[in-house]
Amino acid sequence: MTGAGDEGTEYQYGLRSEMARDASRVEAFSDAVIAIVLTLMAFELLQLGPQQPDQPGLAGALIREWPAYLAYVITFAIVGQVWLTHHNMWRYVVRVDQMLLVLNLLLLLFVAAIPFAARLLSDNLQGTVGDQRLTAALYVGTALGEALFFNLSWWWARRRHLLHPGLDPRLARAVARRFLLGPLLYLVAFAVAFVDPILSLAAYFLLTALYVIRGPGDLPSSRPRPS
Amino acid sequence: MTGAGDEGTEYQYGLRSEMARDASRVEAFSDAVIAIVLTLMAFELLQLGPQQPDQPGLAGALIREWPAYLAYVITFAIVGQVWLTHHNMWRYVVRVDQMLLVLNLLLLLFVAAIPFAARLLSDNLQGTVGDQRLTAALYVGTALGEALFFNLSWWWARRRHLLHPGLDPRLARAVARRFLLGPLLYLVAFAVAFVDPILSLAAYFLLTALYVIRGPGDLPSSRPRPS
Amino acid sequence: MTGAGDEGTEYQYGLRSEMARDASRVEAFSDAVIAIVLTLMAFELLQLGPQQPDQPGLAGALIREWPAYLAYVITFAIVGQVWLTHHNMWRYVVRVDQMLLVLNLLLLLFVAAIPFAARLLSDNLQGTVGDQRLTAALYVGTALGEALFFNLSWWWARRRHLLHPGLDPRLARAVARRFLLGPLLYLVAFAVAFVDPILSLAAYFLLTALYVIRGPGDLPSSRPRPS
Amino acid sequence: MTGAGDEGTEYQYGLRSEMARDASRVEAFSDAVIAIVLTLMAFELLQLGPQQPDQPGLAGALIREWPAYLAYVITFAIVGQVWLTHHNMWRYVVRVDQMLLVLNLLLLLFVAAIPFAARLLSDNLQGTVGDQRLTAALYVGTALGEALFFNLSWWWARRRHLLHPGLDPRLARAVARRFLLGPLLYLVAFAVAFVDPILSLAAYFLLTALYVIRGPGDLPSSRPRPS
Repeated sequence: MTGAGDEGTEYQYGLRSEMARDASRVEAFSDAVIAIVLTLMAFELLQLGPQQPDQPGLAGALIREWPAYLAYVITFAIVGQVWLTHHNMWRYVVRVDQMLLVLNLLLLLFVAAIPFAARLLSDNLQGTVGDQRLTAALYVGTALGEALFFNLSWWWARRRHLLHPGLDPRLARAVARRFLLGPLLYLVAFAVAFVDPILSLAAYFLLTALYVIRGPGDLPSSRPRPS
Repeated sequence: MTGAGDEGTEYQYGLRSEMARDASRVEAFSDAVIAIVLTLMAFELLQLGPQQPDQPGLAGALIREWPAYLAYVITFAIVGQVWLTHHNMWRYVVRVDQMLLVLNLLLLLFVAAIPFAARLLSDNLQGTVGDQRLTAALYVGTALGEALFFNLSWWWARRRHLLHPGLDPRLARAVARRFLLGPLLYLVAFAVAFVDPILSLAAYFLLTALYVIRGPGDLPSSRPRPS
Repeated sequence: MTGAGDEGTEYQYGLRSEMARDASRVEAFSDAVIAIVLTLMAFELLQLGPQQPDQPGLAGALIREWPAYLAYVITFAIVGQVWLTHHNMWRYVVRVDQMLLVLNLLLLLFVAAIPFAARLLSDNLQGTVGDQRLTAALYVGTALGEALFFNLSWWWARRRHLLHPGLDPRLARAVARRFLLGPLLYLVAFAVAFVDPILSLAAYFLLTALYVIRGPGDLPSSRPRPS
Repeated sequence: MTGAGDEGTEYQYGLRSEMARDASRVEAFSDAVIAIVLTLMAFELLQLGPQQPDQPGLAGALIREWPAYLAYVITFAIVGQVWLTHHNMWRYVVRVDQMLLVLNLLLLLFVAAIPFAARLLSDNLQGTVGDQRLTAALYVGTALGEALFFNLSWWWARRRHLLHPGLDPRLARAVARRFLLGPLLYLVAFAVAFVDPILSLAAYFLLTALYVIRGPGDLPSSRPRPS
């Protein structure tokens, strides 16, 4: 298969499209995992909501469950952020090898643990100081594991020439910087969560706004050329 | 990457197909989220059904759970409608930028909350007037949030020239009108739900029928040309 | 958009590939829904298994839950069958319109209800005669609804010329026959389930074997021609 | 459809791309099922974690639940391994027939049962010897079923010429060997689990590391040729 490029255009096209299918499949599989994680919290909401059908007031029951809604919004934001980062990284990946697939699976292992960590965090917002510290440490560990495997994936893809050959090296560096920066900022937000959850939520939305404003910098803004 | 169009056909083809992959991935990810939301209610049914295995009569148990079946059908219809709208919008999107991805994620945040809102609504159909008003307000809020981000996505995609260059401007306006109209009609249906759930169900099916009858207007009806 | 074919090859290619993306997206969305339904029963198993951790013997507990395992295998087989039928149908669909999307969503509404119907059936295998008749009727209703919308989809796709123009009319008729035949055979199997669940399971595996043996008839068996 | 190759390049391209879509759809559907299975254990974690909110110490509650975390990591690794194997196999499949689809569905039937088997195993790590033997046997049965249908799929795809015509026969044999080898190694790991779960976890990570190190051997390592 290695020397296939010598055998003519038609056949080579087949091989190239097969490689593109490879990368597409990794994206599709990661998308499915991330989408399930994203909706797991919505499912949790579904189970929380009606567990007190005999409560005197629905409004009171809903208000008492605010940590669950906080966990839903925060988890949605964090997993959404993971998807954005994954999307921005994999659009430049044109080939895969065994190690990149394994690194991607390890990334997904930590992504799939986010709802569990978020749930523990929201359940213990009003718990003892020791429990708060433990859940915050678990959350930080999940975020760090995820950041570690994003950075390892990008480093491996660059080292093994798995990226699009036309990718601007400055853009590659900008993407690497974002991979390092993003998780760091969210770690700060969650260190704040350890002190004050409301302040952390505010910090989180500020960071997301900043991310959105400076985000389009690494995406081509030229118009498509149809001919 | 911006000036890539000057470097020759082969390379440009690569870039263009990469952009198409971008939009496809957003569709695939949104599809996964919407599909999970669509089946969440089926999962709820699964949990409701057998919780009274020692009931004297199964028929009675099933009939007493009618609000859950109503919620299943209504949620399926609403989420199906969201998918149709998403499908009709994204078939014209050929490029994405960071902001459009964020707007799409915010849309999905509200879509994923639909089963929760529907469950609250169905649980409180026979509750106090105050609880009915609260759940109706939550439902309307979810629908409004979803409609808001559909409209923002389309407005942003038009403003930033992310749509197919061959898209007829009249068609773009028709799509925008549909985005505004659809949610409004469903709001009316659910305002009726606040008064009478059975009447609302009838109104809902009428609206869906109308939507289906006038639907094909913005889809090309020409036969494909194979050569 | 209707007259786009006059504007040149490049543009037309864009439109054609956009249409192909349309059909692909319907497949991807349906796949996600069917995959979730397929694994819902596995999730049910997960919840059933450990609910008696304090039982004297695990083997006894597992054996007492045999209706759940029967429901898992039967549902997997039926939903797998639905996926095969959907796959065989949509490989010939090259364009979609609003009505076909709505028919496909209604099909998915019934597909998503299969685990609920299967669970009711397995829960009431040892119930009263009245409950058995009710659950059998619900199951038959689900299967009939699914069969109805498969047949309506195919009829609509043929009527509105949404199929691949190179599709052999005899093949189109064979596919239509299969759509009518398949559900009928499964109805027979479940009518038998009403009399004797073990006999029904045997009948089911026989029918699946027959389906597999005569299945490849409508799929091209020629070798691919790479040049 | 069999004689379609004679009718010209354009039409043939349509047929060939339709076939590629066929294989892509099988991948996408399998991906969705595997992704759901992969995240089912994460969902289990979510349900386990907060069930003791009134426990004196969170740390103690988390530590007491270690079999659930072990089951999460092991299941993630095994299902990840299944995905890698599926990915490595299907990248060479360019056409599908009815039997290959059925074999793939039967494979997914066993894959979807992995979380159930893993849960039973982790629940009975500290149970009686008889229960341990039963759960180990169920686990081994699940793994063997999965391995059986991977091998049958590959054998059928080779026999019916459904693989990429440019696939090196030595590579095809190497893939077949991996399909036989992988499950055998995991069986050994789980035979060890029957004796000592901690030793088994160590053995598992060793095997995964070996798999990763010798893995890239069957993937092309040449750089892509853009022209």
